[in-house]
Amino acid sequence: MGSSYVNGGGERGLDGAGPGSVDKGVDYANYFCTYSFLYHQKEMLSDRVRMDAYYNSISQNKHHFIGKTVLDVGTGSGILAIWSAQAGARKVYAVEATKMSEHARLLVKANGLEDIVEVIEGSMEDVTLPEKVDVIISEWMGYFLLRESMFDSVICARDRWLKPTGVMYPSHARIWLAPIKSHLIDQKRDHYDGTMEEWHGFIDDTRNSYGVDMSILTEPFTDEQKKYYLQTSLWNNLRPEQVIGTASIIKEMDCLTATVEDILVIKTQFFSSILEEDTKFSGFGGWFDVHFRGRSESPATTEIELSTAPSIENGTHWGQQVFLLNSPIRCSKGDNMNVSFVMNRAKDNHRLLEAEFGCEFKLASGQPLQPFRKKFFIE
Amino acid sequence: MGSSYVNGGGERGLDGAGPGSVDKGVDYANYFCTYSFLYHQKEMLSDRVRMDAYYNSISQNKHHFIGKTVLDVGTGSGILAIWSAQAGARKVYAVEATKMSEHARLLVKANGLEDIVEVIEGSMEDVTLPEKVDVIISEWMGYFLLRESMFDSVICARDRWLKPTGVMYPSHARIWLAPIKSHLIDQKRDHYDGTMEEWHGFIDDTRNSYGVDMSILTEPFTDEQKKYYLQTSLWNNLRPEQVIGTASIIKEMDCLTATVEDILVIKTQFFSSILEEDTKFSGFGGWFDVHFRGRSESPATTEIELSTAPSIENGTHWGQQVFLLNSPIRCSKGDNMNVSFVMNRAKDNHRLLEAEFGCEFKLASGQPLQPFRKKFFIE
Repeated sequence: MGSSYVNGGGERGLDGAGPGSVDKGVDYANYFCTYSFLYHQKEMLSDRVRMDAYYNSISQNKHHFIGKTVLDVGTGSGILAIWSAQAGARKVYAVEATKMSEHARLLVKANGLEDIVEVIEGSMEDVTLPEKVDVIISEWMGYFLLRESMFDSVICARDRWLKPTGVMYPSHARIWLAPIKSHLIDQKRDHYDGTMEEWHGFIDDTRNSYGVDMSILTEPFTDEQKKYYLQTSLWNNLRPEQVIGTASIIKEMDCLTATVEDILVIKTQFFSSILEEDTKFSGFGGWFDVHFRGRSESPATTEIELSTAPSIENGTHWGQQVFLLNSPIRCSKGDNMNVSFVMNRAKDNHRLLEAEFGCEFKLASGQPLQPFRKKFFIE
Repeated sequence: MGSSYVNGGGERGLDGAGPGSVDKGVDYANYFCTYSFLYHQKEMLSDRVRMDAYYNSISQNKHHFIGKTVLDVGTGSGILAIWSAQAGARKVYAVEATKMSEHARLLVKANGLEDIVEVIEGSMEDVTLPEKVDVIISEWMGYFLLRESMFDSVICARDRWLKPTGVMYPSHARIWLAPIKSHLIDQKRDHYDGTMEEWHGFIDDTRNSYGVDMSILTEPFTDEQKKYYLQTSLWNNLRPEQVIGTASIIKEMDCLTATVEDILVIKTQFFSSILEEDTKFSGFGGWFDVHFRGRSESPATTEIELSTAPSIENGTHWGQQVFLLNSPIRCSKGDNMNVSFVMNRAKDNHRLLEAEFGCEFKLASGQPLQPFRKKFFIE
């Protein structure tokens, strides 16, 4: 049977319940391998906002680097390791799980830093360093901060290799959610409707031409298509004006002290007020920011923020994650909502997430609205 | 780092040198998992040419099925197993490696065939049947016939479970190549040029803004992009008039006797004459056909052919595989070529292929043309 997919374009794989039990080959096929492509590294290196934030956090806080030892977790092309060395580090360990490490090694040498930066190919959980380090730097953030679950590897590195006085770059991270308006659901709904219509025609054809009644598969097919079109969060570049209500922080993390336990399940409640007159609440937009503050015993002299909030000028390759309701809700300034939010990792692939929203709208008019819940797959 | 890819859209994984040494979890993440989606099954079930060929081969050769035992290798939704039962089989074993087997079981029951069709979830190499069978039926063909290397599993099934008198459905397979004209290379070349231009701008920006000289990566980046845009064969639906010369069979297989050894490496020479006046030789188009002939001791009464040759009315989801030269060659009726062809499996993923063409053009004018070679990745 011809299928374009031979890893190649595929869907979720199976890799066990948690980071400790992930088969490495499966994790490579499911996750790591895209990072072995220079094209993908270039995409990230071309993200000006991302590059500026890390570059400035290092170059404007040289006191954290001069004469110090640094560990770059997931070095990719080696850029953060190189900047750390250029900022005066005595020694930098740059760990990379994929063959991209070979390119990183070339890049380090071409920039005259091979005496300072040691590129190590391997997974962070497996490598052994000759010493503990003063700084752990890493660009580990996935869509909606935690997709990819890469921070687990940073925690592992920190617990094994950061000196008691050591500093994390970035030092803090936050996840935000806000109500938004968006037309995307119309497109998704059209595609879903089209697919279902095609399916019903297909059922008739198969019965008439081939004597097989496939209608028993309509329910699972509907579930599959609903999930794909209507229940999966989307990457989108939101315009700020699409945010129609107050944004809330739903998770705050201190990178120096956070544990894997702290991020396995995010469970919170938040309140949001609609700020726009006569608008439509289409769902939620989610994003994150990270800060480079150093630590209280050794603060940054210049604090840098990297935000992925909706922006016209300062968008990033992360975009935002958009969680669309099946049908938008008319609302207006003065209306409020109480929202419950639970997010956890997907059972069969710890690098993917699932999130459930519970929404209790309170209209200014006093008119009661039925509370609703919706579950999403973050794939 | 935000990446859309978490198996999800990915590239080649690692799974060892051959079918015997493939890690099952990796093979699932790399290959099998797309077949667990009903949407994908529907695509194949909606291929009218494919469906007609199998349906007709069974229903017009009932003598092979009535009162007989059948094994369907890679049953997917269960369609071939169901048709076999409807044609009068006594017992059908329908083996499926993915959770699609659960849908197949539902479908069998909904069509009243649960006493005849037994759906078994598992990989063909691992399952045990209670008896040997009279017929092995399977739709195993990938792009260019052998992509996906699924026939290995059919061979395994045949050697273990087919009675000495048993019949293979299909019974024979052939791979074809022909010279074609195509404009696709222009598009690919434009994309490649655009990507390279963007890269050079990126190198300058990174040097100027961030003090890092990435020019050492230009060579590997070029190799990576060349491979992606210019050295990978393409799926295409060729129009018959794009075939500009004689087509050649480059491999013939008897499904009753072929061994894995026979298909590990395809190595052949062929001759092709250009048939069109004042044309451009852009590369080769490849396709396959299979036949349902039964066996000499028990032939089909009606022989059926399933061809994936270029066709306006009878296209299939397999399309053709297109192997494009970097630059087309002007030629005309009367010009000929001697072509050497070698195809083998990719080292790090046995389900993907690599092919090398060596071309010696003989122009009718007598003017000598430099012979050339080109290697392709079939991904």
